Amino acid sequence: MRFLMSNLAAAAALAMVMATGAEAASPKAQVQAWRQAHEKQILTDFVALLSMPNVATTVPDVEKNAAYIQGLLEKRGFTTKLLTADPGTPPSVFAELKVPGATRTVTFYAHYDGQPVGQKGWIAPPFDPSMRTALPEAKPVDWKAAATLDPDWRLFARSAGDDKGSIQALISAFDALKAAGIKPSVNIKLLYEGEEEQGSPHFAKLVAKNLETVRGDLLIMGDGPMHQSGKQEINFGNRGITGFKATVYGPLKPLHDGHYGSWAPSPTVMIAALVTSLRADDGRVLIPGIYDDIAPVSAADKAALAALPDVETGLKKAMGLGRNVGPPRLADGYMTVTLNVRAIHAGDEGPNAANAIATEGDASFDFRLAPGETPERVHQLTEAYLTKLGWFIVRDTPDLATRLAHPKIVRIDWDAGSSIATESPMDGPAAKAVAASISRTVGYPVLKLPFSGASSGMADIVNQMKAPMVGVSIANYDDNQHARNENLRLGNLWDGIEVYAGLLADLTW
Amino acid sequence: MRFLMSNLAAAAALAMVMATGAEAASPKAQVQAWRQAHEKQILTDFVALLSMPNVATTVPDVEKNAAYIQGLLEKRGFTTKLLTADPGTPPSVFAELKVPGATRTVTFYAHYDGQPVGQKGWIAPPFDPSMRTALPEAKPVDWKAAATLDPDWRLFARSAGDDKGSIQALISAFDALKAAGIKPSVNIKLLYEGEEEQGSPHFAKLVAKNLETVRGDLLIMGDGPMHQSGKQEINFGNRGITGFKATVYGPLKPLHDGHYGSWAPSPTVMIAALVTSLRADDGRVLIPGIYDDIAPVSAADKAALAALPDVETGLKKAMGLGRNVGPPRLADGYMTVTLNVRAIHAGDEGPNAANAIATEGDASFDFRLAPGETPERVHQLTEAYLTKLGWFIVRDTPDLATRLAHPKIVRIDWDAGSSIATESPMDGPAAKAVAASISRTVGYPVLKLPFSGASSGMADIVNQMKAPMVGVSIANYDDNQHARNENLRLGNLWDGIEVYAGLLADLTW
Repeated sequence: MRFLMSNLAAAAALAMVMATGAEAASPKAQVQAWRQAHEKQILTDFVALLSMPNVATTVPDVEKNAAYIQGLLEKRGFTTKLLTADPGTPPSVFAELKVPGATRTVTFYAHYDGQPVGQKGWIAPPFDPSMRTALPEAKPVDWKAAATLDPDWRLFARSAGDDKGSIQALISAFDALKAAGIKPSVNIKLLYEGEEEQGSPHFAKLVAKNLETVRGDLLIMGDGPMHQSGKQEINFGNRGITGFKATVYGPLKPLHDGHYGSWAPSPTVMIAALVTSLRADDGRVLIPGIYDDIAPVSAADKAALAALPDVETGLKKAMGLGRNVGPPRLADGYMTVTLNVRAIHAGDEGPNAANAIATEGDASFDFRLAPGETPERVHQLTEAYLTKLGWFIVRDTPDLATRLAHPKIVRIDWDAGSSIATESPMDGPAAKAVAASISRTVGYPVLKLPFSGASSGMADIVNQMKAPMVGVSIANYDDNQHARNENLRLGNLWDGIEVYAGLLADLTW
Repeated sequence: MRFLMSNLAAAAALAMVMATGAEAASPKAQVQAWRQAHEKQILTDFVALLSMPNVATTVPDVEKNAAYIQGLLEKRGFTTKLLTADPGTPPSVFAELKVPGATRTVTFYAHYDGQPVGQKGWIAPPFDPSMRTALPEAKPVDWKAAATLDPDWRLFARSAGDDKGSIQALISAFDALKAAGIKPSVNIKLLYEGEEEQGSPHFAKLVAKNLETVRGDLLIMGDGPMHQSGKQEINFGNRGITGFKATVYGPLKPLHDGHYGSWAPSPTVMIAALVTSLRADDGRVLIPGIYDDIAPVSAADKAALAALPDVETGLKKAMGLGRNVGPPRLADGYMTVTLNVRAIHAGDEGPNAANAIATEGDASFDFRLAPGETPERVHQLTEAYLTKLGWFIVRDTPDLATRLAHPKIVRIDWDAGSSIATESPMDGPAAKAVAASISRTVGYPVLKLPFSGASSGMADIVNQMKAPMVGVSIANYDDNQHARNENLRLGNLWDGIEVYAGLLADLTW
């Protein structure tokens, strides 16, 4: 009964829009009505997209995703092709739609690959999308049989928020405009990357090979979560990234710690000491010179940061934190370099624990780079500092002669992918047009972040194309991206469709 | 052919011993000849014993071992019973043999349980004993079909060295003496513990309940490896032990480190900092007051330590170490407290690695305690220091209110089992008798270590019985005890049988 009423209500809304004519109903109202009438179809399509495993270390998996997305866009009249840097590397999906009369071309970037999924504690398999009621209950719900879909429900799956949600929102926005007979105001190029979560190791080459193909007058990056206040936020760049794994070496075989604990060096202690020599508990990066290259924060950026709503108190409560590290305001920390210690491991624990000295210890790090820094310089500073601290740096597992010759050995493996930060002006005409469009759609002044704390394969396009870029995020901030139980709140998908429809329909400068 | 020759040679040796009479052949020669004639039977029995899973966290497993060992001793004329602290806890096997005319009673201690076996890299399943050629080749060898058994071959299995080898050696020594018609010189009590590798959490109670049953005039502890020089070594005590697990807390859910790495505390960094605050890379324990209770090293102990052969240079090469921590001489470090960091873990790595902030970090520690220290005092000092460093100590996973109220929370779980150090005089009559007996057997002055760097459930008997104790080790030092690929060198088993036979046959004081 409720199901019927809901569908009738949606149909009535659509009928009203139709009856009153396109002139009378705003594009936003038309898009909203279409979405209300097609929510289950949109979700069916989204679930199909999310059901495809997309960890880019398995290239055949991402190739299947690429072919599928290509098919979705072909059906909608786009001219498409798959771009690759080299055979066997993850493809990017490129799609183009020329709009008669349009003078500007906007390149929309997103990525269709996702983070690894082996984390423990998923409430449902990561590639078997699971609709759940609002947090904190998150109970399974049969959305196909439901009369209405609560916007606070969440769809749990890898990439729901990061970043297939952006792809689904844009495609649905396009469908909504088409149904309403609204012509896009710009030529559209879509570039959907397939290895962003691996650090985009081949993306710079892919872009270089296809620079004219993908070139636009404006780049819109559809990635990342919205502001923690729940308000729509845009940003004008991303931090860079570079990471590494450090492995230290103890005895060749595990040793009984009663007999050897007072004499044999402990790789568990060594890796802990290496971590604390690089990063302080209070957030400071302890590598000499690491802050020297960072560009000063401009007055405009400072003003934008100061204008962001206060979310820190709420975040601490939501995250169960009795303190924060770094500056009190979350986004202020994005203006500088951050060193995160992704993992540290040495020795066995749990049922395999033993009173033994382990043979190795390792830790994994990633730097988020501020404008002015380069991965190369950060590598240099890091290794010079470790050398100064007495570490002998190797690139492979050391042989016996090397072990005997050097008291402290660390193997450093830099991640394949890295990027510098990108920062686009907040006050350029294209950037202003995006801000105006989104503000119109959402009904309040969109929040502006100078650049995101996160990094993006987008950097490789921005740096080569030198066009202005704006980041447009639609995912709920608590989407658990990069972790177990990634999810997208339904209301965020609906709002995202409207935001994208607004951009496609009325972006002009 | 060679098989026949070998058997013939052994039979000839035995025949010669028999022909020349007990007076003419030394007990050592008689034992040696019997062993040579029965090597394959001894190994068949040992393999059967090692094939029984014996990790004491699975009580039914250790109960099966206990019943089996009890059967072996019953068959040999011992009066036996199983002792337990409480129903459902691992039993100790007690066995007694009164010898007419004997005035002294010696209690032989060993343990039949083993360390956990889940470590990666076993060359054969830990409970499927595998005979291998000498190191470093360690190729599988069909010992049952071999003509002769090379004493440098090794039998790989959990507990081969630690500590079922001691049990097998004593039983075979008993059989050898019986075959030769040599009567033990002392009343024999055997006490075989079943939870030593779990820290003997119930053993003190078990001993207290059965103190008169297990009491002897001398305790001989058959556990631990021999000296690294390959020479027979005895010790007169053990260090104590107490351990704990520390768990620190970050955000309630994993967070994207681009967005939150500059603001949310990192449990990976926190646990590394906790480790480095407790233990220095150079081996020092950094807890204020931790060295204050340690008894000074006596002149006799200093002399015994100085008399130990130099093994350090060879050990560094064998272990692939470019340095050592603590004092240059290995055994000098046993005279003080050691803190080993068994393991440290936070965040995902490998295929599940993510650019994320982990929710928790943990590390696992064990202290080896010198004479004068108590676990209780060490707990107190450790916790007082952590508190001074700003840690709020909890005993369970903290709830939200606790997390919000305290910036740095650590959960401390002290291990169930702990013990103080034991040290028995090196110059008492019983201790001297043991040294003399073993020196006679091996043909050189036995090495004397004031106490072992390791710990033992034996501490609970020593402390209650207040009898002199001597530790007699037979396992090769490189037996990988507590680690993957534990093994016993065959020659060590053969020598161990002679050592035990000597002790049983001619121990008098």
